[in-house]
Amino acid sequence: MVTLPQLDTALEEPLYRQLYQYYREEILSGRLSRGERIPPTRELAGQLGLNRATVASAYELLETEGLIRGHVGRGSFVEGPGVDVALSPLSWPERLADPLIAETATPALLSSADAISFTSARPADELFPLDEFRASCAEVIGGAQAAEILQLGSPQGFGPLRAHLLGQARRQDQARPADDVIVTSGCQQALDLLQRLLTTAGDTVLVEDPVYPGLRNVFIRAGVRVVGVPVGAQGLDLEALDRLVARERPRLLVVTPNFQNPTGTTLPLPARESLLRMAAGAGLPVVENDIYGELRYQGEALPTLKALDSAGLVVQIKSFSKITFPGLRVGWILAPGIVIERLAELKQWTDLHSDQLSQAVLLRFAESGRLAAHCRRMVEAGAERLRAVLAACERHLPGGSYWTRPQGGMNLWVRLPEPMDASDLLGRAVRENVSYLPGRYFAVGRPDPGAFRLSFAGLTPEKIEKGLRILGSIFEKDRASGRELRRGAPAPAIV
Amino acid sequence: MVTLPQLDTALEEPLYRQLYQYYREEILSGRLSRGERIPPTRELAGQLGLNRATVASAYELLETEGLIRGHVGRGSFVEGPGVDVALSPLSWPERLADPLIAETATPALLSSADAISFTSARPADELFPLDEFRASCAEVIGGAQAAEILQLGSPQGFGPLRAHLLGQARRQDQARPADDVIVTSGCQQALDLLQRLLTTAGDTVLVEDPVYPGLRNVFIRAGVRVVGVPVGAQGLDLEALDRLVARERPRLLVVTPNFQNPTGTTLPLPARESLLRMAAGAGLPVVENDIYGELRYQGEALPTLKALDSAGLVVQIKSFSKITFPGLRVGWILAPGIVIERLAELKQWTDLHSDQLSQAVLLRFAESGRLAAHCRRMVEAGAERLRAVLAACERHLPGGSYWTRPQGGMNLWVRLPEPMDASDLLGRAVRENVSYLPGRYFAVGRPDPGAFRLSFAGLTPEKIEKGLRILGSIFEKDRASGRELRRGAPAPAIV
Repeated sequence: MVTLPQLDTALEEPLYRQLYQYYREEILSGRLSRGERIPPTRELAGQLGLNRATVASAYELLETEGLIRGHVGRGSFVEGPGVDVALSPLSWPERLADPLIAETATPALLSSADAISFTSARPADELFPLDEFRASCAEVIGGAQAAEILQLGSPQGFGPLRAHLLGQARRQDQARPADDVIVTSGCQQALDLLQRLLTTAGDTVLVEDPVYPGLRNVFIRAGVRVVGVPVGAQGLDLEALDRLVARERPRLLVVTPNFQNPTGTTLPLPARESLLRMAAGAGLPVVENDIYGELRYQGEALPTLKALDSAGLVVQIKSFSKITFPGLRVGWILAPGIVIERLAELKQWTDLHSDQLSQAVLLRFAESGRLAAHCRRMVEAGAERLRAVLAACERHLPGGSYWTRPQGGMNLWVRLPEPMDASDLLGRAVRENVSYLPGRYFAVGRPDPGAFRLSFAGLTPEKIEKGLRILGSIFEKDRASGRELRRGAPAPAIV
Repeated sequence: MVTLPQLDTALEEPLYRQLYQYYREEILSGRLSRGERIPPTRELAGQLGLNRATVASAYELLETEGLIRGHVGRGSFVEGPGVDVALSPLSWPERLADPLIAETATPALLSSADAISFTSARPADELFPLDEFRASCAEVIGGAQAAEILQLGSPQGFGPLRAHLLGQARRQDQARPADDVIVTSGCQQALDLLQRLLTTAGDTVLVEDPVYPGLRNVFIRAGVRVVGVPVGAQGLDLEALDRLVARERPRLLVVTPNFQNPTGTTLPLPARESLLRMAAGAGLPVVENDIYGELRYQGEALPTLKALDSAGLVVQIKSFSKITFPGLRVGWILAPGIVIERLAELKQWTDLHSDQLSQAVLLRFAESGRLAAHCRRMVEAGAERLRAVLAACERHLPGGSYWTRPQGGMNLWVRLPEPMDASDLLGRAVRENVSYLPGRYFAVGRPDPGAFRLSFAGLTPEKIEKGLRILGSIFEKDRASGRELRRGAPAPAIV
């Protein structure tokens, strides 16, 4: 049973459109469903006291939209809605606005048990303190705060963890009086939030070259120009920095003074002080990535940029990922309160807040003293692995190779003698079950073809020695064949 | 009083370097502070039984590093560490590129135990299945996968959870053959990633008006134009949508067909089908936010847009936050493989991957059957709370008020009769320990001053009844005084 439409001649809307809209709404709302008959034009015109052409115009519109269909001699029937005609498929590639950063796709990790992968700057599985983790976790979920942890939290982070981190920074003279802390989902998110807060498309940011690709890409994808400052054996080249600050008028400088990724280098104390003086002179905020800071295996700890900063221009980022469990995503930012406040707003619209279970478990891990004990074991193991990788480089890399001498962290940087190409040689290494990341993954400017990164912290000394022995023999063979090639017939022209 | 350094002739390290390191450590640690005098070389050499040249060499090194300074005839004084010239402080407000979205700051939640807060769309603490959570957690951390969970994971999500979610979507006919899943840190991050993948500054996106502020703000902060499609009692107004799609040429449409936040409305089936036809006709991708989908308390479940979509244009986002624990940040996106692949790259540079402990615990919670049992209890409790809030609205809201009749979810939308202003009245409510969120927080276009959101799911039926009784009496008083005001002297001109 169809009720009659109520039309209103006082409205500006013509009657045929009122009629059309009435039926359209009836059909779209489902009050009239597919297959139901609607009155013939003549009949409805009579019932409503309308001209038959008015009704026909309304029906025409409905038919055009596929909502009804007329059958000669039988009247009109409801057709839609319903996706009765197959919809034309959407072409997704045209709808994707975000640029693909293709060259950064990392090679597949080797997964067989006897593979030796120098590709990932992560702690070794076998060093995970599983029992201590389980104990911390059990204490947290068995505790009185469990319901609070499971409920919606604060964008700035789990209160007790924030208090712990800020208290620790104060005790270590890292924090200035106006500083505050925000918890992030690891250092990667810290970089992402800082990119959004401190730069806009078209700005220039200075980073180390070579650099961790996740740092470079955060800025590239936001349309920010990334300019590299060369890294030498003593970290960032300060003369180059001075020149680039003057020439590029950067919006931001991001540095990793301790055990930089990928080179493993450490910035000496006087260079840290000079860097701060330059930045203060140029009004340039500095992001200090101190993710590896706790992993010093040799020499004495140097004060961080944050500790030296009397101008309040340093934003420090740190994380639990390298010293505990990368699978738990908890990092933090220590910065002036005004910066933290704005980061918290940003964080809210980015992912509301970081996972609270992991925040609470890591806090328990730290407060129980288990973190400090674990750190000592990590430093011990790291020192052993660092000695192993340096000795193995000495033993197996071809003459004329250069490599850094890190004092901590997880990475070491190798440069093979010319004209060897670390990218070309990777295929051979993978066939012998060994892998590393060639220099091009870390390049900001022109890649160095002979360079590659050795991430040694995740491998036992035995695997390090064996892996480098295999690499050394591949490199040696390449060098020998290169000599032959150069001694042999001239290469044909490239056409 | 300066203690004497302890030097050790048995060490390999030369004595001058031991001395140098001793003072360096004293200064860097702050035990010796700037301006303090250190003994003259002759004096110290005498005290330590050293050659004076040894002491002088150590001092020379310290002076080179800027740690001490010698004054002729007065001795040496501590200079560093620290940037010795006071650096000019950085002015942060000028360095912040990100726009502040000030109007969205939410009012402080009432925190006293007897407060009645209708402000937050979150599950009730007292409904958390703590024992089931603890059991799931214990099973995960005690299991063989613990080390894998703690290690670095995949940007697309924890493999077993992804497989579970995709399998479930297939069994429920939600997934098309080419679809895939990526795990996100809740629905908020899903929106953030989709904003970045599918829109750029200057684009237009259509959203419901009123809408969840976290959705609107994700686009606003990226410089995307947000245009609102009005929501009526039956969800999105399809005629308005039709007009706006033609006029605005939007890049994206975001809708919440089930129990929309803040109105609680449900889009009827024919409207879902019409919406898809319009979108397919315009080549318009649709993001379907189905975060509340499992929380239906009345009526029959309707097919989602994703299930109806034959054109492959729907991207569906879902989350565990509303049905389990908001403190664990795990949501997911179901979309064509090409979209998921690109989202995974984006996710990697955003926060590497989501927290794996929570992913594993929620997977265990689901696979053990605890999630399904908990969902049944949530739906039972929600149905009771929905009945309570509808009855209390009927009983206590002033005549002429309008409110929605949700069939599920956590929110209900009220509009008070003119000229009442829900923002103005909030202050009085808070003084009586009751709070809600006024309509302006959710407005895309012009806010509706009489409107506000009642989030009822986190409150017991008793609190709901009591809270609405208090609100009703505040509103009634306001109406009475309004009548008096209108009957009284004309208001003075605003100057």
